[in-house]
Amino acid sequence: MNPPSPPAQIIRAIDVIRKKRDGGELSRHEIDSLVNAYTAGDIPDYQVSAWLMAVVLRGMTRPETAALTDAMLHSGDVLDFSSISARKVDKHSTGGVGDKTSLVLAPLAAAAGVAVPMISGRGLGHTGGTLDKLEAIPGFNVNLPVAQFRRILETCGCAMIGQTAEIAPADRKLYALRDVTGTVESPYLICASIMSKKLAEGIDALVLDVKTGSGAFMKTEDDAAFLAELMVETGERMGKEVVALITDMDQPLGSMIGNALEVVEVVEILRGQGPEDLRRLCLELAGWMLHLGGVSATVEDGKRQSEKLISSGKALAKFRQMVELQGGDPRAIDDPGKLPQAQHTMTISSPRGGYLASLKCEQIGTACVVLGGGRERKEDSVDPAVGIVLHKKIGDAVSSGERLATIHYNSEARARRVGELLEESYQIADSPVEKRPLIHRIIGHT
Amino acid sequence: MNPPSPPAQIIRAIDVIRKKRDGGELSRHEIDSLVNAYTAGDIPDYQVSAWLMAVVLRGMTRPETAALTDAMLHSGDVLDFSSISARKVDKHSTGGVGDKTSLVLAPLAAAAGVAVPMISGRGLGHTGGTLDKLEAIPGFNVNLPVAQFRRILETCGCAMIGQTAEIAPADRKLYALRDVTGTVESPYLICASIMSKKLAEGIDALVLDVKTGSGAFMKTEDDAAFLAELMVETGERMGKEVVALITDMDQPLGSMIGNALEVVEVVEILRGQGPEDLRRLCLELAGWMLHLGGVSATVEDGKRQSEKLISSGKALAKFRQMVELQGGDPRAIDDPGKLPQAQHTMTISSPRGGYLASLKCEQIGTACVVLGGGRERKEDSVDPAVGIVLHKKIGDAVSSGERLATIHYNSEARARRVGELLEESYQIADSPVEKRPLIHRIIGHT
Repeated sequence: MNPPSPPAQIIRAIDVIRKKRDGGELSRHEIDSLVNAYTAGDIPDYQVSAWLMAVVLRGMTRPETAALTDAMLHSGDVLDFSSISARKVDKHSTGGVGDKTSLVLAPLAAAAGVAVPMISGRGLGHTGGTLDKLEAIPGFNVNLPVAQFRRILETCGCAMIGQTAEIAPADRKLYALRDVTGTVESPYLICASIMSKKLAEGIDALVLDVKTGSGAFMKTEDDAAFLAELMVETGERMGKEVVALITDMDQPLGSMIGNALEVVEVVEILRGQGPEDLRRLCLELAGWMLHLGGVSATVEDGKRQSEKLISSGKALAKFRQMVELQGGDPRAIDDPGKLPQAQHTMTISSPRGGYLASLKCEQIGTACVVLGGGRERKEDSVDPAVGIVLHKKIGDAVSSGERLATIHYNSEARARRVGELLEESYQIADSPVEKRPLIHRIIGHT
Repeated sequence: MNPPSPPAQIIRAIDVIRKKRDGGELSRHEIDSLVNAYTAGDIPDYQVSAWLMAVVLRGMTRPETAALTDAMLHSGDVLDFSSISARKVDKHSTGGVGDKTSLVLAPLAAAAGVAVPMISGRGLGHTGGTLDKLEAIPGFNVNLPVAQFRRILETCGCAMIGQTAEIAPADRKLYALRDVTGTVESPYLICASIMSKKLAEGIDALVLDVKTGSGAFMKTEDDAAFLAELMVETGERMGKEVVALITDMDQPLGSMIGNALEVVEVVEILRGQGPEDLRRLCLELAGWMLHLGGVSATVEDGKRQSEKLISSGKALAKFRQMVELQGGDPRAIDDPGKLPQAQHTMTISSPRGGYLASLKCEQIGTACVVLGGGRERKEDSVDPAVGIVLHKKIGDAVSSGERLATIHYNSEARARRVGELLEESYQIADSPVEKRPLIHRIIGHT
């Protein structure tokens, strides 16, 4: 018979709050106790919100951030895909406008032999969400039980679902509290929220796309890099391979914004067409996924393999297969006419000739929400058909009266408001402007 | 007919939290809205605790502190004693060990013609409370309705009661939340809590006794001075005359600690006897109360008047009158044998000769709680009879085996524990030590 284990030291929430308030470093045991007791309902919201505010204002050390991530990760189920021999790799973006890379990358990396168990979120505020885009495909089901998620992953090499109740319940409870207590904006809390959910997917490696610019949550490159370093180090402390690309979100990615329109653009990319910026970013991220997934010796080699999988049609075939396995209508992939269509379109023209100098990226994302394509509150429903097509990107020459954008809409009143928002968003200059780089920095694995 | 007033700007709690989190200055309207909505139950605890933590870590400006005090003050009834022609003056102490000055000062100032409507608190942690001391007098009732409080004040010139439900309800609700969320320790919140309750008494002037030293909440003189300045300025912004004395709490005040024992010492002072430090502090504070109460031209003159009211017996007679009006047994004032008595006493002797160099003041306060004379939790009851009598103060010569203290106790086990705490508290030095000043600084009105 084993001797009884010594009683665990009893941690009082008030002492953990005071310690963080005074700038102290919390132990793993203190953080575990707080997260577990909160998830179990043994600590009230008002104590945790005071602690969250102390974290926002005092920060956390790297060991504290890793301990918080670990505690949140282990608050629920951690998926185990060790029966799948391929390496499991996911990609996560911090969110932006027109960012549909996940829909390209999951089938592309799967076609190369990497397993991609992707759990995504919905759009909120000015940014879109992967689940909303997938649901624009008639019949596509993102609410699968874990057993079915596993079967599709085994069959197809990729599967894309929404958050389940079993994964990181501490994050769900903490996020809801942060949302109403002004404690969302902390890199430490953002890191723990993202990484706890991603590491619960049972992955070996993770490619992070940390957005920066006027349409991103992290407006400055320094803020984006700080968050990226935190997430890379946290993932590495937990035994995962992690790389972060700081990429540009000073203008929407690609040309199309809106759920069904973005699916159209995804198919264009998988056909070897589509806008240059989106194509380049997808190949860069795919290169990293293939490299960390062990199917290419280098990132460059991974990019070349990805290009071949696109030109051979294998990546598109994989997308079609995944759509079908998740209940979606595969004909919508080959015939955009089978996707939801807005009833009306309206164009925005340039008031003068010159060069497109800047776009208010967040405002364009908000314009899509106003059309009904996104949600201001969690409980809002979205209209998959509406959206905006951009005909010009920063640096492009434009002549007076030339089309800048087309609005796809179902409500005249909303379209008028969106027309005003878009007109305000464009700045036209007399001389050409320098384009911002698409990829600002790569953090980790260098 | 008047035009309709414009709709008040709607303030969202989340925006107020974020603004303070980011170091912004809140407007009076924002603070009013938050306090009123919280008091009405329209904002949940978890939002207010996040805001409180942001205030602890970001601080407040003087106008914000005054606005918070004002909002809390007006969350309930503000007493109106304008029918009493005498000026109304109160004294408030930030709390310490053996601090029984309120029981001396209310009758002393009233005997001089100042009206003293005093609303006090109970002991918590290592510090004693005025209400507990008053209740050591058999029959004394501190729970009087406002109408009776007013009648006694009109008849006698002073009355001493506990907090009523009608006074500053926002403070009661906020204090309960601060107590469990690590947000007690903020000078801005302490100031608003104290000043909102004191200004609700309908007073014209206030004398603050801000304690500093090992037995005080403010351990350093700088912290005490910061809080004192904040309270003086806040009171002045609200049209009151306020002075703050920074006084010493590096050792207990006077010789007796424990509720009934402290009443005995109060009567000694009112008879012109008792320990020198307590006597000096009472006269200093009384001098200010008389001066601000308009019955003496200077503070020095107020001190001289107070000495005369003691030597003539008028101050003691006033105390006896107040005790009787509040239901207490006046014979307990003249015969200490009628106050609760502990069953046993035990002395602590000096292990060596020398000079008393220091005392662990907070630990001596805690020792009194261990005896049963104070409370660790709000719901604890107190034993009025127990306590500690100190025979030596810092700087006194002591010979080996001489009595340092006497413990008055009702439980053998508790007395043994207290004996250890006291023995640890004394430090005896070979040569005489310099005494700390009793009054460190005077802030305001200078």
